[in-house]
Amino acid sequence: MSGATSAAFADAFFAAPQVAAALCDDAALRQMCVYEGALARAEGEVGAIPPQAAASIAAALNEFALPVGAAREKLFTDAAKAGTLAIPFVKLLTAAVRARDPEAARYVHYGSTSQDVIDTALVLQLAEALVTIEADLARLCAAAAHLAKAHRDTLMLGRTLLQPAIPITFGLKAAQWLAAGLEARGFIAGAKAAALVPQCGGAAGTLGSLGDKGIDVARRIGTYLPGLHAPRALLPWQTRRGALVALCAAIGIAAGVCGKIARDVSLMMQFEVAEAFEPIEEGRGGSSALPHKRNPVRSMQILACAAQIGPLVGQMLAGLPQEHERALGAWQAEWPVVPQIFKLASGALANAAALLEGLTVDAARMRSNLEALKGLPFAEAFSVALAPKLGRDEAHELVEAASRKVPDSGKTLAELLAADPRVGRHVTLQELAAIGDPHRALGATGAFIDEVLGLWDVVA
Amino acid sequence: MSGATSAAFADAFFAAPQVAAALCDDAALRQMCVYEGALARAEGEVGAIPPQAAASIAAALNEFALPVGAAREKLFTDAAKAGTLAIPFVKLLTAAVRARDPEAARYVHYGSTSQDVIDTALVLQLAEALVTIEADLARLCAAAAHLAKAHRDTLMLGRTLLQPAIPITFGLKAAQWLAAGLEARGFIAGAKAAALVPQCGGAAGTLGSLGDKGIDVARRIGTYLPGLHAPRALLPWQTRRGALVALCAAIGIAAGVCGKIARDVSLMMQFEVAEAFEPIEEGRGGSSALPHKRNPVRSMQILACAAQIGPLVGQMLAGLPQEHERALGAWQAEWPVVPQIFKLASGALANAAALLEGLTVDAARMRSNLEALKGLPFAEAFSVALAPKLGRDEAHELVEAASRKVPDSGKTLAELLAADPRVGRHVTLQELAAIGDPHRALGATGAFIDEVLGLWDVVA
Amino acid sequence: MSGATSAAFADAFFAAPQVAAALCDDAALRQMCVYEGALARAEGEVGAIPPQAAASIAAALNEFALPVGAAREKLFTDAAKAGTLAIPFVKLLTAAVRARDPEAARYVHYGSTSQDVIDTALVLQLAEALVTIEADLARLCAAAAHLAKAHRDTLMLGRTLLQPAIPITFGLKAAQWLAAGLEARGFIAGAKAAALVPQCGGAAGTLGSLGDKGIDVARRIGTYLPGLHAPRALLPWQTRRGALVALCAAIGIAAGVCGKIARDVSLMMQFEVAEAFEPIEEGRGGSSALPHKRNPVRSMQILACAAQIGPLVGQMLAGLPQEHERALGAWQAEWPVVPQIFKLASGALANAAALLEGLTVDAARMRSNLEALKGLPFAEAFSVALAPKLGRDEAHELVEAASRKVPDSGKTLAELLAADPRVGRHVTLQELAAIGDPHRALGATGAFIDEVLGLWDVVA
Amino acid sequence: MSGATSAAFADAFFAAPQVAAALCDDAALRQMCVYEGALARAEGEVGAIPPQAAASIAAALNEFALPVGAAREKLFTDAAKAGTLAIPFVKLLTAAVRARDPEAARYVHYGSTSQDVIDTALVLQLAEALVTIEADLARLCAAAAHLAKAHRDTLMLGRTLLQPAIPITFGLKAAQWLAAGLEARGFIAGAKAAALVPQCGGAAGTLGSLGDKGIDVARRIGTYLPGLHAPRALLPWQTRRGALVALCAAIGIAAGVCGKIARDVSLMMQFEVAEAFEPIEEGRGGSSALPHKRNPVRSMQILACAAQIGPLVGQMLAGLPQEHERALGAWQAEWPVVPQIFKLASGALANAAALLEGLTVDAARMRSNLEALKGLPFAEAFSVALAPKLGRDEAHELVEAASRKVPDSGKTLAELLAADPRVGRHVTLQELAAIGDPHRALGATGAFIDEVLGLWDVVA
Repeated sequence: MSGATSAAFADAFFAAPQVAAALCDDAALRQMCVYEGALARAEGEVGAIPPQAAASIAAALNEFALPVGAAREKLFTDAAKAGTLAIPFVKLLTAAVRARDPEAARYVHYGSTSQDVIDTALVLQLAEALVTIEADLARLCAAAAHLAKAHRDTLMLGRTLLQPAIPITFGLKAAQWLAAGLEARGFIAGAKAAALVPQCGGAAGTLGSLGDKGIDVARRIGTYLPGLHAPRALLPWQTRRGALVALCAAIGIAAGVCGKIARDVSLMMQFEVAEAFEPIEEGRGGSSALPHKRNPVRSMQILACAAQIGPLVGQMLAGLPQEHERALGAWQAEWPVVPQIFKLASGALANAAALLEGLTVDAARMRSNLEALKGLPFAEAFSVALAPKLGRDEAHELVEAASRKVPDSGKTLAELLAADPRVGRHVTLQELAAIGDPHRALGATGAFIDEVLGLWDVVA
Repeated sequence: MSGATSAAFADAFFAAPQVAAALCDDAALRQMCVYEGALARAEGEVGAIPPQAAASIAAALNEFALPVGAAREKLFTDAAKAGTLAIPFVKLLTAAVRARDPEAARYVHYGSTSQDVIDTALVLQLAEALVTIEADLARLCAAAAHLAKAHRDTLMLGRTLLQPAIPITFGLKAAQWLAAGLEARGFIAGAKAAALVPQCGGAAGTLGSLGDKGIDVARRIGTYLPGLHAPRALLPWQTRRGALVALCAAIGIAAGVCGKIARDVSLMMQFEVAEAFEPIEEGRGGSSALPHKRNPVRSMQILACAAQIGPLVGQMLAGLPQEHERALGAWQAEWPVVPQIFKLASGALANAAALLEGLTVDAARMRSNLEALKGLPFAEAFSVALAPKLGRDEAHELVEAASRKVPDSGKTLAELLAADPRVGRHVTLQELAAIGDPHRALGATGAFIDEVLGLWDVVA
Repeated sequence: MSGATSAAFADAFFAAPQVAAALCDDAALRQMCVYEGALARAEGEVGAIPPQAAASIAAALNEFALPVGAAREKLFTDAAKAGTLAIPFVKLLTAAVRARDPEAARYVHYGSTSQDVIDTALVLQLAEALVTIEADLARLCAAAAHLAKAHRDTLMLGRTLLQPAIPITFGLKAAQWLAAGLEARGFIAGAKAAALVPQCGGAAGTLGSLGDKGIDVARRIGTYLPGLHAPRALLPWQTRRGALVALCAAIGIAAGVCGKIARDVSLMMQFEVAEAFEPIEEGRGGSSALPHKRNPVRSMQILACAAQIGPLVGQMLAGLPQEHERALGAWQAEWPVVPQIFKLASGALANAAALLEGLTVDAARMRSNLEALKGLPFAEAFSVALAPKLGRDEAHELVEAASRKVPDSGKTLAELLAADPRVGRHVTLQELAAIGDPHRALGATGAFIDEVLGLWDVVA
Repeated sequence: MSGATSAAFADAFFAAPQVAAALCDDAALRQMCVYEGALARAEGEVGAIPPQAAASIAAALNEFALPVGAAREKLFTDAAKAGTLAIPFVKLLTAAVRARDPEAARYVHYGSTSQDVIDTALVLQLAEALVTIEADLARLCAAAAHLAKAHRDTLMLGRTLLQPAIPITFGLKAAQWLAAGLEARGFIAGAKAAALVPQCGGAAGTLGSLGDKGIDVARRIGTYLPGLHAPRALLPWQTRRGALVALCAAIGIAAGVCGKIARDVSLMMQFEVAEAFEPIEEGRGGSSALPHKRNPVRSMQILACAAQIGPLVGQMLAGLPQEHERALGAWQAEWPVVPQIFKLASGALANAAALLEGLTVDAARMRSNLEALKGLPFAEAFSVALAPKLGRDEAHELVEAASRKVPDSGKTLAELLAADPRVGRHVTLQELAAIGDPHRALGATGAFIDEVLGLWDVVA
């Protein structure tokens, strides 16, 4: 019963569809075909197997129809027994080749091993998944850049430790998101060149069955593996998984960037804050019980995705000390985990990109939330300004005392200070109001934003 | 395309089939039906909804056919948009009820909320999964008990830090496995009573829509939820997830017990050690490249399962600080993870039970591996025995010097000592050999084993 | 330089002082003395060593002064080389015994092994740490119970997915905290009985050096190990760590309960929400840059503690598959981690207890935040009430349309509905207002609270 | 009592001394002084504070004596209350400056914030720690390169899934270690340039108090922060932690490389395998109970370090979704964790470098372990060789039947085959022996090794 083992809901909920498709079981089988075809072609070229056999294998695999129904189920059951998908699947491939060219059948998977085909198929899948992942990350950056530019000067309250701090602009927040996205792009780009390389090593990483032709097979196989990079060293990476882990970590960082955005948006979207909102979309964000609700569904999905990736990357790292030439347990434990990391990140990225592209920003509310603090964020500025006139200690005490009165007074800090004769004889309310003008308090905000936008302009 | 999102291979490889079935998407939908039916019946009984509506709902849900094909796909896509499976699924259920009894349709999911139905369906699924999990854990214990009894006196080398230590018996090792299994049983039993309880709280955990009838609904709903326990308090557990986490941890410990067994077996099964072997089974443990191989496939699967659970339980713990009356992200992040923990543990347990039931033990090789140490583990015993005759320091020095000669001498430590005249005039080789008789060196081994077997006899 | 390796800041920041003290290096050494003393006394009683030697050892260890300065540093450096603290420390202890009774010196640590003394010392430390941990958890429960009782009827907005839902009372929120605390108490109590047991097994878990006296030593040693529990089986638990992991998980759940409280409080303490506040305390919660800030410092510390524990428990679980009779790596990896779990939990609990004991609740603000929703949470109730009069569909449409007007209208939903003639001819504003009275919408809230308070009364 | 909170044992056991020193509390305080000095100097240069004040601050901080004893304890207790080390420490620094130049005191930490000084001090510490970490990683690579070269042709058994596979050379195993080390170097180098950058943003990341001079301060401060890199963007990274996480992941990968080496060495060092051994060193690797033991202590420490890092990096990733302009909990949760990751990695690297530098290789035993398989790894080669003469199916059956007889026969597979007349009439024992000559079966081994050594030659 295929329903019994499906994970359709989780994929729909936590992954971008293209990435779920690139990483599903059938995609793995298709990429295993790609590997075996590439192997045969490389081996045929260097004479490790007869060129005619290579041609037959490539042709047969090209037409190979993946098993369905009971045959598919048997394949996976056999794989569980064998301890590897490669053994029963290579049998199926061999049968398909045999039907076309009996002689060629003996050269299927020739000189290769389970780990070669499984690992190489994996990185082929990842390469395909990355197309969507990187595109969504670029969309996220573009949307953040747009917001940073549009709201470069939109005042809002900066918040630290979930408490009011001093004014920032919403553009600065968006510029931080952009900067984080740009960093993630860089980490992914760096890691994928090291990780997405073919593996071709045979039973114990020596290509022992291929004699002196092995090294040439290793050199050529990449030609037929679209999307993979050329390795710095041809040595197979059977129990050397650092590059794969680095890529997983980079993917996890990208998801974390989305999580940061979702955290900010969901906090701003609180009813009592109401500064920014996820886009309104039909069927998204309602409640089964409460018709008035507008839930931050995309933020929720992003945060749910991001929360799952850290531990999975932790497992990948913990699994690095693998035994000898092929690990017992730690390698196999990667199988569900690496695709899961990529799927979760894709879900986070697709949602974050859409969220930012459609974000509703309420600049007026940002302003009024800031003003609700009645000048308190400028206490220090007042204190500094009054110090030359009152002496530093008295200035500080007066400002502190006035600050404490602000919440219950219905007045701003500037007003309370101006009303104090000790202050009033030195400065006017107008002068104090100027000190408490948030636009004057933005410091390097604009410069910071412009610099990040400049970085984006270079790569966009 | 349903293949695009399937996880059939992972389930076949890492989970017991019954547990994969109990935790699949369709099982979740079926258990959601069970919850909604139970809710309607409880509400009908206390008069929160008309009894006739309750009857219609129960009847309609009883016959409800889960969506397939495009309808199923749409359900999951809608769920991703809505942020919860409950909204679109309750719509489907409502339509089904409406077709039978239009008036009853308005009472579907009455006064309830997404989290009620999703969480309760989850624990119903877990209860079903636990039947297999606990049965396999019992099989594991029974098999370990059998080995402990059968090999109570089978000498083998105890090994610490992957180096030879002193003699133990294989029965002691099996008794440790048994004791670990018994502990895991206890942790699961304790945790499930707290975790597998209904949740019925409505939109914010007050059953506000049900007025003064809510508390009675909460009291009665469990009657119709087979396999669940009565909660200590009826308060819903929406953002109070400690019991669920405790159950996940207990399940993880059970998987860890399997991992310990797999570690030991795979080390004993090394070609150079060759003391115990996984059962030989058709199609299990071969190699795609190497016909002579007999791979510890069950151990591998167990270790792969166990390696994945720790981080997932870590995530569950880290997710405990959930917001207010329903979490944004941390709850949703549990959805794929809790089933995954149970599936992985089921895979570990099914394999470990089968492994122990069919374990091949080579007692002769155990003995010869022990003897290959040529008495070195008894160095301390020799030293203690010679001290009264030679003085403690000289005894120690003589034994140490002789120990160093053992590896290259081709002789046992007893022989080398007996050949030294300073020793020989005090004790004979025969006397020394008796000191180095491993059976004499087992200390409390038998008593330890018997005690654990006694615990097992009580529960078996 | 001892400063070079200290972790004084982290302990001050993240741990309760008594727990940090119970788990520090010196406490470990002291508890190792306790173990060796207990071992000698048990061995003396059963005649495994001369009673006189036992007495001398117990006396010498009783007076043993822990090494300081360079001697302490050398001890730790030697331990790093030896791979265990036990080897160099037992040497120090032996020297101390020798100074008092040269003959007794040979019976120090007699028949024992590194893991016995290290593991038993660990659980002695944990038992001491648990005194504080359980006391703080009880304080937390008492404070939550007090709040639940005092605010049983204090209306506030229930919030799901960080959005407004329907009314609850603050007492219900506190009752949830209490229920979570009570659960954690139960998990800790259950787990510690299994985990805090002596370990006495000798080199490979057989007590081989003690011959037939070993089992009696194992039986008696607990008498001299204060705070430990009697094991269900005397079998040493060298590579059987499930009970220890279960205890770590239970401790982690207690920290997670604190995290939940901190999450709620920090969200309620937001400037824009302002419903509850951490206690004001001298020197706590200020800002280096912003004099007006009142930071949720205790919440922050709690969340920081809780965030660290999940992954550590995950590591403990992942470390269960340990090799043979003593693990290579996985055991040693527990050494910093188990104390860290307990320290972090103690920091979370001490802060959470103090936070709840001093929590400032602004019931008026809770009420006004609820009222700011202008009746929107009662949309469904209005719809249900109007259905008999208007027909279900029209009722629903009218209410939905009115709901959408609420935010900009300056009116409540009841007012808007009453002003609609289609509604007004059926019901009065007064009747509608009654439907929208949050007190009437609390459903089972009071019953839920009372039940949990009843559970607390039993144990308090 | 400072002993009460020390972690001296853990540092001695799990960290390189220089790294523990660079990351201890006092080093953090010293680097905080460095930051404050750099800030004052940059601010003085651009006229944000009086140049004289800047000079006084720099001079005072230069001479600042860290608090000891009760003052140190009070500092940390105050920090726990304040929620940050910065508040009480800046007070101490301000007092020190005031004592020298009262006017300058008001410019200490001017325009800055807790997170600026704490984060920048952290990366200064990490930069110092990396000097040792990268040096030890280079030593590891050098030692692996030496082994790869020296044992390029030293035959040994390749092992997959802990079972015998086919011949490799020990040089290939060492080349894999080298390749893994080289990859880790690259990841660290890439990540540190992004992560080890100053942070200077003020209360909410705007440098608001510095007006239009802020951006210039941000530009200049790096000049006075030795070891840090120039950031791509000056924007502070308060809640943008991706680069720090990437560095932690890279460090974790380096530790994982060590773990891989330790796994291999400890398995080879098993008594029954005995192919390679950790260096013999005084006081290292003995047993408290068993004088004959030679424990793989360095491997143990490496594996223990590596096992702890994965979950910690997982926490760092999970902590990325930080709130607004400064996180509540997730940032503070990094404080003990980032240094711990670096310390654990340093312990792994220091041990792994020493282990490889002193590794004892028993090439004869490697050869004899390989020969103990009696030609079984060549079954496929025999089958292929005989196929042209016997037909493929018969060849395969004959070889398989002979393979099964090998273990009990006392003969090699070649001998058994040669003795079979169906084979013997086609090939001689000598010819068969040549097929089963492991040197002929090494395939690309040499080429793989040489290529990696070439990469090393470029960077070494």
